[in-house]
Amino acid sequence: MCEANAYLLKNGKEELLMEKIDKLVPHEGGFMLENIFGQRKFIKAKIKEMELVDHKIILEE
Amino acid sequence: MCEANAYLLKNGKEELLMEKIDKLVPHEGGFMLENIFGQRKFIKAKIKEMELVDHKIILEE
Repeated sequence: MCEANAYLLKNGKEELLMEKIDKLVPHEGGFMLENIFGQRKFIKAKIKEMELVDHKIILEE
Repeated sequence: MCEANAYLLKNGKEELLMEKIDKLVPHEGGFMLENIFGQRKFIKAKIKEMELVDHKIILEE
């Protein structure tokens, strides 16, 4: 499976926000993240970088 | 490998923009896309949706 983990960059540190993300959709100035189990999180943040081969989505506020 | 393909939504149709994308980084009002071979494309577009399990990144202008 090719899901990715999302990290929120805070004070230069990456904090794990959500694992096994399948979908990412823009939502009200941020994103809706949905994992492979259908669970959703909404976060006001922007993309800093995505590294798909490393399964990494890095967001920042 | 968990790279994805990027499509640009134009007039309701998805046009293949780049295959086997590893990295996606915001760049001047759009994104820099880099595939697993290190080739890069710059596109002025925003994310409409990402479906990682389906290896799909959908962008729109």
